[in-house]
Amino acid sequence: MTGSADKPLVVLTTAPQPVERIFTGAALAALHERFSVVDLSGSDDPDRALQNLLPRAFAIVGQPELTRESAERATTLRALINVEGNFYANVDYPTLFRGGVHVLGCGPAYAQAVAEYALGLALDLARGISREDRAFRRGFERYLGAGNADAILLRHSNIGFLGYGNLGRALRPLLVPFSPMLRVYDPWLPAAVLGEADLRPASLEETLSASEFLFVLAAVTDANQHLLGPAQLDLIPLGARVVLVSRAAVVDYDALLDRVAAGRFLVGVDVWPDEPMPADHRARSLDGLVLSAHRAGGIPAAFQQIGDMVVDDLTLIKAGLPPVRNQAASRELVGRYRNRPAG
Amino acid sequence: MTGSADKPLVVLTTAPQPVERIFTGAALAALHERFSVVDLSGSDDPDRALQNLLPRAFAIVGQPELTRESAERATTLRALINVEGNFYANVDYPTLFRGGVHVLGCGPAYAQAVAEYALGLALDLARGISREDRAFRRGFERYLGAGNADAILLRHSNIGFLGYGNLGRALRPLLVPFSPMLRVYDPWLPAAVLGEADLRPASLEETLSASEFLFVLAAVTDANQHLLGPAQLDLIPLGARVVLVSRAAVVDYDALLDRVAAGRFLVGVDVWPDEPMPADHRARSLDGLVLSAHRAGGIPAAFQQIGDMVVDDLTLIKAGLPPVRNQAASRELVGRYRNRPAG
Amino acid sequence: MTGSADKPLVVLTTAPQPVERIFTGAALAALHERFSVVDLSGSDDPDRALQNLLPRAFAIVGQPELTRESAERATTLRALINVEGNFYANVDYPTLFRGGVHVLGCGPAYAQAVAEYALGLALDLARGISREDRAFRRGFERYLGAGNADAILLRHSNIGFLGYGNLGRALRPLLVPFSPMLRVYDPWLPAAVLGEADLRPASLEETLSASEFLFVLAAVTDANQHLLGPAQLDLIPLGARVVLVSRAAVVDYDALLDRVAAGRFLVGVDVWPDEPMPADHRARSLDGLVLSAHRAGGIPAAFQQIGDMVVDDLTLIKAGLPPVRNQAASRELVGRYRNRPAG
Amino acid sequence: MTGSADKPLVVLTTAPQPVERIFTGAALAALHERFSVVDLSGSDDPDRALQNLLPRAFAIVGQPELTRESAERATTLRALINVEGNFYANVDYPTLFRGGVHVLGCGPAYAQAVAEYALGLALDLARGISREDRAFRRGFERYLGAGNADAILLRHSNIGFLGYGNLGRALRPLLVPFSPMLRVYDPWLPAAVLGEADLRPASLEETLSASEFLFVLAAVTDANQHLLGPAQLDLIPLGARVVLVSRAAVVDYDALLDRVAAGRFLVGVDVWPDEPMPADHRARSLDGLVLSAHRAGGIPAAFQQIGDMVVDDLTLIKAGLPPVRNQAASRELVGRYRNRPAG
Repeated sequence: MTGSADKPLVVLTTAPQPVERIFTGAALAALHERFSVVDLSGSDDPDRALQNLLPRAFAIVGQPELTRESAERATTLRALINVEGNFYANVDYPTLFRGGVHVLGCGPAYAQAVAEYALGLALDLARGISREDRAFRRGFERYLGAGNADAILLRHSNIGFLGYGNLGRALRPLLVPFSPMLRVYDPWLPAAVLGEADLRPASLEETLSASEFLFVLAAVTDANQHLLGPAQLDLIPLGARVVLVSRAAVVDYDALLDRVAAGRFLVGVDVWPDEPMPADHRARSLDGLVLSAHRAGGIPAAFQQIGDMVVDDLTLIKAGLPPVRNQAASRELVGRYRNRPAG
Repeated sequence: MTGSADKPLVVLTTAPQPVERIFTGAALAALHERFSVVDLSGSDDPDRALQNLLPRAFAIVGQPELTRESAERATTLRALINVEGNFYANVDYPTLFRGGVHVLGCGPAYAQAVAEYALGLALDLARGISREDRAFRRGFERYLGAGNADAILLRHSNIGFLGYGNLGRALRPLLVPFSPMLRVYDPWLPAAVLGEADLRPASLEETLSASEFLFVLAAVTDANQHLLGPAQLDLIPLGARVVLVSRAAVVDYDALLDRVAAGRFLVGVDVWPDEPMPADHRARSLDGLVLSAHRAGGIPAAFQQIGDMVVDDLTLIKAGLPPVRNQAASRELVGRYRNRPAG
Repeated sequence: MTGSADKPLVVLTTAPQPVERIFTGAALAALHERFSVVDLSGSDDPDRALQNLLPRAFAIVGQPELTRESAERATTLRALINVEGNFYANVDYPTLFRGGVHVLGCGPAYAQAVAEYALGLALDLARGISREDRAFRRGFERYLGAGNADAILLRHSNIGFLGYGNLGRALRPLLVPFSPMLRVYDPWLPAAVLGEADLRPASLEETLSASEFLFVLAAVTDANQHLLGPAQLDLIPLGARVVLVSRAAVVDYDALLDRVAAGRFLVGVDVWPDEPMPADHRARSLDGLVLSAHRAGGIPAAFQQIGDMVVDDLTLIKAGLPPVRNQAASRELVGRYRNRPAG
Repeated sequence: MTGSADKPLVVLTTAPQPVERIFTGAALAALHERFSVVDLSGSDDPDRALQNLLPRAFAIVGQPELTRESAERATTLRALINVEGNFYANVDYPTLFRGGVHVLGCGPAYAQAVAEYALGLALDLARGISREDRAFRRGFERYLGAGNADAILLRHSNIGFLGYGNLGRALRPLLVPFSPMLRVYDPWLPAAVLGEADLRPASLEETLSASEFLFVLAAVTDANQHLLGPAQLDLIPLGARVVLVSRAAVVDYDALLDRVAAGRFLVGVDVWPDEPMPADHRARSLDGLVLSAHRAGGIPAAFQQIGDMVVDDLTLIKAGLPPVRNQAASRELVGRYRNRPAG
């Protein structure tokens, strides 16, 4: 298995994702038809195997460690495709960029799933769906208007986004039919980008203060850990609904749960500072939460899209065309993410 | 309080809705400014009081009994506005139509609330939001892909509507961003009406068989009680998500719950054959249900819109213009509904 | 040809529209299959023939004169469907309403055609399409930016509608992708109706003063002849684009053309005070006009839709259901239109 | 003017665009505030001046020749921003990519203007707006249906795009309200990219054969000159409307005009094989054309956006963030375009 001009060498090292989770049978067949494929998932020593293959590899699918020395040995490498959705710090990215390697991430594969889930959480919080389902099961349901005292509409509401990346871009179209006033805080984007998208650029303070629905969609970077600390959380209006689906480290959890316990606002939480959370954690019994175990993105349809995206983009690159389905890492940002591997 | 050309007589008999639930202070003030208003809610004998006022009434807001004889005495009546959302059989509608009375219903006031709720139920069922929230609270949450085996996207799914009236028309725009294939069964509408709205007209059988998401949105009429019996329910695909927000009588509940218990499909239920449901009913413990106590429409924002709609339409009628906010009863259908008062 | 319960009598008196223009072969076949059809277009004396048929007629398709006496003789009449798009004053409407007759108009058939045309005129005016096409043909084209000094975008512009009836409702969705600020002046509609449609209700003065694009979409009534006189026209911003597609009588034409001649604004005109216009009229040589000969609505697709709408609605009425495709006349407004027959 | 870490050196060499056309006063002020700016437009010898500045330049705005040797001297260069909308072959792009220089183009600035114009041409062709305006001016207008025999709706029509780049992406949202069947031929894009955008991927043959409206939106490359030759043009349906707004070289003009002269289809032409076209060219008198002198993109709003995009992206790059407003050149495609400078 050496690869050739006709069938260049593609190395699969997708752990912890099993190959069969992210590639359908059809996608894997297409990959094998067009490329020499080496799957390291069954290898005794995948690191050593990768080192041996590096000088001939056309593409690597996965997020293995690549030191500067390794990266420099990958002289024929054209693409590194991360199938985790995040870029980690275990790669010497500058060497890859200098060599003209496409550094790609499959983040967009998860965006639709997260967006639909975030909307689902927002509607649950707006209307008390899971709370009243629990009450009904215990025999305490309240019919008609009786259980609706705090129910609110999404339509014509004030909505805030913290961060306008893949998740925000996927969520926003789902909100269009509700005709919201949609404020966005994203310090990496000029106001005109948001204005052209018919969004209102806003400061963090304005976004927090004005939002009846607040979606926390920011990735974690070296700059925004605990973006939402006690002072920021206190800006959120009484009775607001907060949806947290990006990364836990953006929020000070103790401060958040204090405010939920005090009834200041309601929160749908999909990401947690520790996963699994301790069995006796107070979050498990807070009525003002919708609890979700990091489930927003990792659904079968999202996983399977990754393989299709890999096959499409490697096929394009082989044909001398630019990749279009995965997301190109930016040289400025790729080193600044602080996400942990999600498994 | 006799009414005059300048301030015609409006009779409020809104029970069981309290006047202050459906009128904001501003709406009530506007009503009093433009009309002579008699509120029968504090009356010892509202029926008798109404009978006395009938010959001078310009409009009645509520759903009192109006026999043919009463209706014929209401010679100055210009509008009867039902604030319940449904038309009941306690009125001699033909006499009113003959007299040129606007028979109006406030149904549209609830449509947005029901549509948002129906979407919330669909997303809950698609992703297991309330089910996994319950599990998390019991300490059995499943992280990442583990709890997502049956999770599906709304995007590009097959969706079916049973009925395309107020509820369907309010729900459909919310689904546009998901680009579904949307089939509609509505025996009262010509195919072209649905085609012009970019919907696919379909038979009941096709709609049931093809829908991964099925929304039951039909009102109950003399013709469609138990529209969904055992044979129809068996057409619904395995694993489908069914949302029931219109009227319970459209469905055979025993047959429905049998299929949920057997794991054939998942259902979000907002309307029930008996309200309240018996404390020991098996529905309360079925994991494949999202249970909701007739909460889809009756939220504060919907109630308050009713009063605004009443004021706007009475103001228009007084000015010699047609009402535009409430919904005109059709002479063909007004006698065919079989809804019970909702309280 | 007497009609029966099984095949009720439908009288076609569609002049000046030929039957074959508004009915496709398929529509006419469906009509004949379901109804006894008498077509008066070949009759020597259609008025007398109609009088003879009136006592047995189930429906009349056309806009014949119906005096009170005639209307009272039409005891079995269930529908009068006007195929001209306008309601004329030659019918005793109150008698028909009292009798429970559906008085319907086919106006919606033309709305999409007019809306697309109005957008086409607006884009022509925004970018000088027909003006520069004329210049190119004379050898005076200006390449690239040279001919674009006054070119403007529709995107994010200020748009005004005068009137929000069928035409406005059809045009508005076409403008949504341009994300305009859309002001509407319509004195027959409460502000909330416009607000719910995400439009900004505005006074006539504000709408005129603020609009870079102004669409005149109002029907002519007893109240709005020359709604746009000299004083109103002077409120329109310098350089605005005005599209006139409803009825000529809404505007003072001399005042309008004076301002176009003076270069104050550009106008696309589809309706004229006299049709045909005099051969030597100054409008024919004004560079600031796009001239159009009442062509916005009357296209083959619109005409043929009328027949389908007639067949669908008569079929529904025969089945005891309300008509849904044609537009019900309002008893308040039907007598107030001042449109001339359009031929 | 040497530049510094605080105010890095930006070289403006925007000819043939004057600096003041693409920068508003505010944009230029912001640029000067944040950067040391050298404008070569007044220079006696701009090439030599550029060579002198290269070793210290942070960014170059314009499309000057950059040989490999020059590019290698630009060791501090972080961005080359082309303000023409196209990338030319006068730059050694590989050297810039290797050095991590952002090679950016302002193409998106023109996309909205072109999209609105393309829609305007399509509506003109659909309804004969400019043709009938010409007739009206000559005294040969045809009222009402008489001039509409070939008028068609955009709504629910079959539309084809040749190419789905910036122009297609800007045009497509404008067509959404018309609910077309939209086929796209783009050999550089995998089918899934189009499918996710709710477009139907199609072969060139299917797209040509099936489209009542055809938009030619492809850039010219080494591979697609005369993409539309006689055989391809003959696939276009009789009576179709063709809009040509990208590059003339995509089409065989003689073959195109032959077919317009023969009445096979109607075409709106904005780009020409020679500009200016010969004074006696037959195109000038063809009734089936709408003639436009390369006016689709170069409007004031587009030009001025370029300067804003330059300021925003240079500000981001200076702050260590990735540019987001201009379009990054792809290393695979940047050498393959065959556009001529547009002036």
